[in-house]
Amino acid sequence: MSEPVGIDPSDWVCPLPLRETKRIVLGHGGGGILSEELIENLFLPAFGSSGGPARDSALLEVAGGRIALTTDSYVVNPLFFPGGNIGDLAVNGTINDLAMSGAQPLGLTAGFILEEGLELEVLGAIAQTMGKAAAAAGVGIVTGDTKVVGKGGADGLFVNTAGVGVVPEGVRVGPDQARPGDHVIVSGNLGEHGVAIMSVREGIDFGTTVTTDSAPLHRLVAAMLAAVDTPNVVHTLRDPTRGGLVASTVEIARCAGVGVELDEHLVPVPEAVSSACSFLGLDPLQVANEGKLVAFVDPAHSEAVLAAMRSRPEGADAVIIGRAVEEHPGMVVGRTAFGTTRVIERELGEQLPRIC
Amino acid sequence: MSEPVGIDPSDWVCPLPLRETKRIVLGHGGGGILSEELIENLFLPAFGSSGGPARDSALLEVAGGRIALTTDSYVVNPLFFPGGNIGDLAVNGTINDLAMSGAQPLGLTAGFILEEGLELEVLGAIAQTMGKAAAAAGVGIVTGDTKVVGKGGADGLFVNTAGVGVVPEGVRVGPDQARPGDHVIVSGNLGEHGVAIMSVREGIDFGTTVTTDSAPLHRLVAAMLAAVDTPNVVHTLRDPTRGGLVASTVEIARCAGVGVELDEHLVPVPEAVSSACSFLGLDPLQVANEGKLVAFVDPAHSEAVLAAMRSRPEGADAVIIGRAVEEHPGMVVGRTAFGTTRVIERELGEQLPRIC
Repeated sequence: MSEPVGIDPSDWVCPLPLRETKRIVLGHGGGGILSEELIENLFLPAFGSSGGPARDSALLEVAGGRIALTTDSYVVNPLFFPGGNIGDLAVNGTINDLAMSGAQPLGLTAGFILEEGLELEVLGAIAQTMGKAAAAAGVGIVTGDTKVVGKGGADGLFVNTAGVGVVPEGVRVGPDQARPGDHVIVSGNLGEHGVAIMSVREGIDFGTTVTTDSAPLHRLVAAMLAAVDTPNVVHTLRDPTRGGLVASTVEIARCAGVGVELDEHLVPVPEAVSSACSFLGLDPLQVANEGKLVAFVDPAHSEAVLAAMRSRPEGADAVIIGRAVEEHPGMVVGRTAFGTTRVIERELGEQLPRIC
Repeated sequence: MSEPVGIDPSDWVCPLPLRETKRIVLGHGGGGILSEELIENLFLPAFGSSGGPARDSALLEVAGGRIALTTDSYVVNPLFFPGGNIGDLAVNGTINDLAMSGAQPLGLTAGFILEEGLELEVLGAIAQTMGKAAAAAGVGIVTGDTKVVGKGGADGLFVNTAGVGVVPEGVRVGPDQARPGDHVIVSGNLGEHGVAIMSVREGIDFGTTVTTDSAPLHRLVAAMLAAVDTPNVVHTLRDPTRGGLVASTVEIARCAGVGVELDEHLVPVPEAVSSACSFLGLDPLQVANEGKLVAFVDPAHSEAVLAAMRSRPEGADAVIIGRAVEEHPGMVVGRTAFGTTRVIERELGEQLPRIC
């Protein structure tokens, strides 16, 4: 679970001189005085100690070796939802993309596309959430960019976060590294992020509030990689975002040329997610997560990796849910509690547009 | 001038199986089969040898030291304009942001936000232009991301390009490094990009077609840094994009705490740009450029740096246009051919929205 971050715009007070205009105007993206005021009075204070100097690129020290580079644009609708907003979603999501390469994050960028008329306090609240999420993760937002388009040219606010990280020497984690026999581990409950978004978007009350699971996973990954002295025990890591567990495992199966068997009754899906999915006609295994990972791990060491995961809050509910097999390469098969099997295939498109 | 790149969608043929749908649908952003088809059949062929494997983050080897990280979102309207399109603009722009730190680019990311209904051949033409621009610059587009929003949720296509580069050992280039006495050099004609966009956007015929100056400047920067054996002769580099020469020099003056004097009659502005700006009521010194740089250089070595610049096509018209002074720190003053002076200030917002 991530550090609690503010999702209530009212906890952010618009500073002078921005206060004279309460909304984004085209000039905030023009590279002139208004742009500078936005950077100096809104972004830099929000990003806090994580914020770099206001220049077009940031400099970072690296010891050499392999760096990981990633990018993600966020268009989630609505911008605020139970447990978070687009800001911490973006920060955590990009950290997680880096972590899934085995990398420890070094720095993030933030590229905003704003619609003219966006309330400055919405932008302020989101920027502040990003700063808090970055600080909680120990990663800086080191450079940024802001563009403004006219009213109707975008839907409120989009943000792109790119990130760079360092892959420790000797670490070889990748979707092509899974091999027959590997145990498939998930780090915790699935389906929460997608259901949290749907519940606010559709205005449906499922009785209990499901909150997003958005959380940074780089420390969990570091613990997994350090669990045993033997190198390359963790073969593959993936964060099951869009397309959920199904898309992640199908991609790994195809990339590594292995089959995957999932014991469906072992997959942890909370009751509230389950019932929301039944109601909405969704498969929880295809619903997006933003603070979970799937790992393919050497079976001789999977219990040690599991123990390391469970020692951390974001991996407390980690569990083995299946295995990689030599049969049916590229295909994922689900096994029910009654022993019957089914082929699990990805959706053609997506169940839930604009989920992240 | 950049390599000639295709701006005519008709030179791109939509491959199967994408051909069955001629337009972007929400599912192309869903992380499922349609997303994969878009990556495999459109992006990877377009990015060509510059395209990395289809995974969430890319791995790059670095020797150690300082890396530069940058991001830029592009929302230019229209997507295609004389001399280029949003694709090569994004690739060159991000390369240039890295180059202005003295860095040589290592890899780029491409994060697309697409509006449902966008013609696939438009996306294909833009991706192909990006691939060609990246190949011409010798830099790979190593990872990417695609999101789709519903019709009306965005204006066609936005793209974010982030980039990472390596700063050679000993190089110290930055906006705070300018010092009194420095010569101010521009690498060539100013105002072309902004006027090229305005001419198509407003449907105005200025007699001659002004084309964008979009071009990668990292090789020009490398030549400048290698011009003399003495280290740290090039103090500051800046690409005068949004806000043009004025915004760049004011920012440098403020950041370094120096005054700047520009000999306005020496600033190279082509006749066609000049007359277009008169017609539109714009100041050419505030119009965006996408293939030019401003440099603050040790005056003892500025002729050698200038000679190195002129030896390259993208610096052939380089010229000294002014100097940094101790007087009026933070302020830029223009000196006319008649010896009169004026204080040059940035616009509050921008002259030309969505210019890049």
